[in-house]
Amino acid sequence: MPENFTYTLEATDGRARAGRFNTPHGDLLTPVFAPVGTAATVKAVTPVQLSEIGASLVLANTYHLYLRPGDALVAEMGGLHEFMQWHGPMLTDSGGFQVFSLGENSKISDDGVTFRSHIDGSTHHFTPERAVAIQENLGADIIMAFDECADPYDYEYSQRAMQRTHVWLERCLEAKTRDDQALFGIVQGGIHPDLRAQSAEFVASMDTPGIAIGGLSVGETKEEMHTTLDAVMPLLPENKPHYLMGVGTVEDLVNGVARGVDIFDCVLPTRLGRNNAAMLRNGGRLNLKNAPFADDPNPIDENCTCYTCRTFTRAYLRHLISAREMLSATLLSIHNLHTLIHLTQEMREAIQAGTFEETFQDLLVA
Amino acid sequence: MPENFTYTLEATDGRARAGRFNTPHGDLLTPVFAPVGTAATVKAVTPVQLSEIGASLVLANTYHLYLRPGDALVAEMGGLHEFMQWHGPMLTDSGGFQVFSLGENSKISDDGVTFRSHIDGSTHHFTPERAVAIQENLGADIIMAFDECADPYDYEYSQRAMQRTHVWLERCLEAKTRDDQALFGIVQGGIHPDLRAQSAEFVASMDTPGIAIGGLSVGETKEEMHTTLDAVMPLLPENKPHYLMGVGTVEDLVNGVARGVDIFDCVLPTRLGRNNAAMLRNGGRLNLKNAPFADDPNPIDENCTCYTCRTFTRAYLRHLISAREMLSATLLSIHNLHTLIHLTQEMREAIQAGTFEETFQDLLVA
Repeated sequence: MPENFTYTLEATDGRARAGRFNTPHGDLLTPVFAPVGTAATVKAVTPVQLSEIGASLVLANTYHLYLRPGDALVAEMGGLHEFMQWHGPMLTDSGGFQVFSLGENSKISDDGVTFRSHIDGSTHHFTPERAVAIQENLGADIIMAFDECADPYDYEYSQRAMQRTHVWLERCLEAKTRDDQALFGIVQGGIHPDLRAQSAEFVASMDTPGIAIGGLSVGETKEEMHTTLDAVMPLLPENKPHYLMGVGTVEDLVNGVARGVDIFDCVLPTRLGRNNAAMLRNGGRLNLKNAPFADDPNPIDENCTCYTCRTFTRAYLRHLISAREMLSATLLSIHNLHTLIHLTQEMREAIQAGTFEETFQDLLVA
Repeated sequence: MPENFTYTLEATDGRARAGRFNTPHGDLLTPVFAPVGTAATVKAVTPVQLSEIGASLVLANTYHLYLRPGDALVAEMGGLHEFMQWHGPMLTDSGGFQVFSLGENSKISDDGVTFRSHIDGSTHHFTPERAVAIQENLGADIIMAFDECADPYDYEYSQRAMQRTHVWLERCLEAKTRDDQALFGIVQGGIHPDLRAQSAEFVASMDTPGIAIGGLSVGETKEEMHTTLDAVMPLLPENKPHYLMGVGTVEDLVNGVARGVDIFDCVLPTRLGRNNAAMLRNGGRLNLKNAPFADDPNPIDENCTCYTCRTFTRAYLRHLISAREMLSATLLSIHNLHTLIHLTQEMREAIQAGTFEETFQDLLVA
C-alpha cells in the first residue's frame, strides 16, 4: 500500500487525468467533486444520503467553524470526521477566501488578516500559523495554505497578493505539525498568465502533496478561466493532484478536467437546491418553481439514478417548493450533488477508456 | 386473508389492546402512531427515513391538499401514495378541524362550511359530500367523516356541533363511492360525559370500519381528556379500531392506550423537531439550543436506536441549531418520530406479554 498522500496517475486522455490520491480516511478516485459542508454539514443532507450519492471528499470551511462552534470544541469532540460523522476524506479551506470576502470588515498586513465576525462583530486575527493551527484542530485530511485572493483584474494587487501568498505558504509549511494531514499550496495571480505561471512554478517547487488553483470562479469570464488554466496546468507536477477551488458547474468540471484538474468543490449544487433549481447533466438547469412543472409526471432527469429522480415527479417537487416545504431543499440538493459526482465518475471512466473528448464534446470549450 | 378493513383484536391487557387492522396498503399493527404529512410530506423527512423509523400509517391534511396542489392534481398523479411516494397505509382528515380553526374566516351552516383560504383569501365551501369527494381524489386508505369541532367547554355549542356531526356522518356514508377506503366516524361532545356517551353510541351504531374520538387535545386538561376517554371508550365496539385524533405526547399515548385507544396522530414530534426540542421516552424534553449541550458528547438518549441517536452527539445537534442548519430539523424530527413510534411498538409487546401496567407505571395516570 502506498504511503498516505501519494497520487497515482492511472490514465490520461489528452490532458485529462484519472488518478488515485490516498488519505487516512480512504482513497480519492479522481476526478472528484467535493460537496461543501460549510458549518460541518452539507446543508439539508445527512451523511447517509451523502454516501448514497457517491460522495467521497467533503469540504468544510475553517472561517465558519473557527467562529462557531470553535475549532477547540471540534477537536474536543474528536475532530471534524467524528463531529459531523463523515468518515470519508475531508478537506478544509484556510479561511482566507472567506476572510477577504468580508471587505471593509477585514484588514490585511504581511503578518495576516484582522477581521470582524459576521456573526457578532467581534474582532479576530488570522495568520498563516493560526490558519494551520485551526485546521489541525479541525483535523481534515487535506488542509489548505493561507492565501490572499485579490481582485483578479487588478494586476498590481494580484502580484502583491501572489507574493504574499508565496511567503505565507512557506510559513504554513513551517507551522504544520501533524503528519496525517496534507497541506496543499495555492496558485494565485488573478487572470494574468505571467503571474499565474510565476505562481505555479513557485508552488510546484514546494514540498506539498497537492496543489490548488485559487482565485478563479470569482467573476471572471469562462474564457479567462480557461486561459488561466492553460497557463497554469502545464506547469504543475504530474505526480500531485490538482485542485481547482470553488468550481462547480457541469461545464466548468468538464473543461477543468480537460485541462488536467483532479479535484473540485463548490456550494453551487446545494445552494441551487435550496433555490428550486435542478442541475442537468447537459449543463442546463430547471427552475422547478415554474408553473409548467405543476402537473409534470416525469422525474427531473429520466437518465439520472439519484434517489430524487428514482422516486419523485417534477410535479411533486414543484408542489413542495410552492408549499415552502423543507424537503424540496433536501431532494434537489441530493439530485444536484449526484449530477456533479456522477459526472466526475463518468469522466473518470471515459478517461480510462480513452473516450473523454468524444463523450463530452457537447460541453467542451476549445 | 381477512377482507380489507377488518380489525383483529390480538391481545388485551386491562383495557389496553393489541390488534391488527388491514388496509389496501398493508396492515396496521396497533397501537400505532401516525406521523403527520400535512402537505403530502412529513416535514424535513424523506419516505425512506420514515420507513427506517418504523412508520406504518402516515396522515395528510385534506384542507391543505385541497388548496395546494389541489385534490384533482393529486388524483391525476395517481393519488397521495404515488404523489408523495409513501406506499404504506395512509389516512386523511376531513378538513373540518382546519376549517373550524380559521375562526372568523369560516362560516358554518347545516349544509357545510364556507371559508377563506389562508393562502390567498379565496372563498371555498366544504360539505360532508365535498369532504368525501376530495378524500376520494386523494385516495388515502382511511378517510374521515366531516365533523364540527366546538369549544369543548361550551355545553350548548358542543351539543349542537355533536348533532350536526352525526347528521354529517350519515351524509358522508351516503356520499362515499370507493370501497378501497375506510370511512371512520368521529365522536364529538366536548368535555361533557353525557354528550360524549350519546355521541359514542350514535357513531358506534353506524356501519363504519373504525371510530375516531375528535375534539380532544384542544386545550382541555389532562384530567378532562381522561374523563372523556373513560366516558367514550367502554361504549365503542371491540371489533373496530379506536382512533384518538391529534394526540401525540408520550404521556398521552400511554394513557390513551391504557384506555383502549389504537391509533394516534400528531404534528408535535415534527413541530418540536423544527423547534430544537427532543422528546424523551420518559415523557421529558430536551431543548438542545441550551448552552450546556454545547460540549455534550452523548446522544440525545443513550437507549434510543434511531439514526440520530446512533450517529450524532448533543454537541453536534446544538451546533446545527446555533448555526441555523436545516439538518437539525431533520435529525430531531427523526428522533422524535422514532420515540413515539417505538413507544407504540413497546406498548404492543407489553400488551401481548401482559405486562402493560408494570412497564408503563411511571407514565400512567389513574
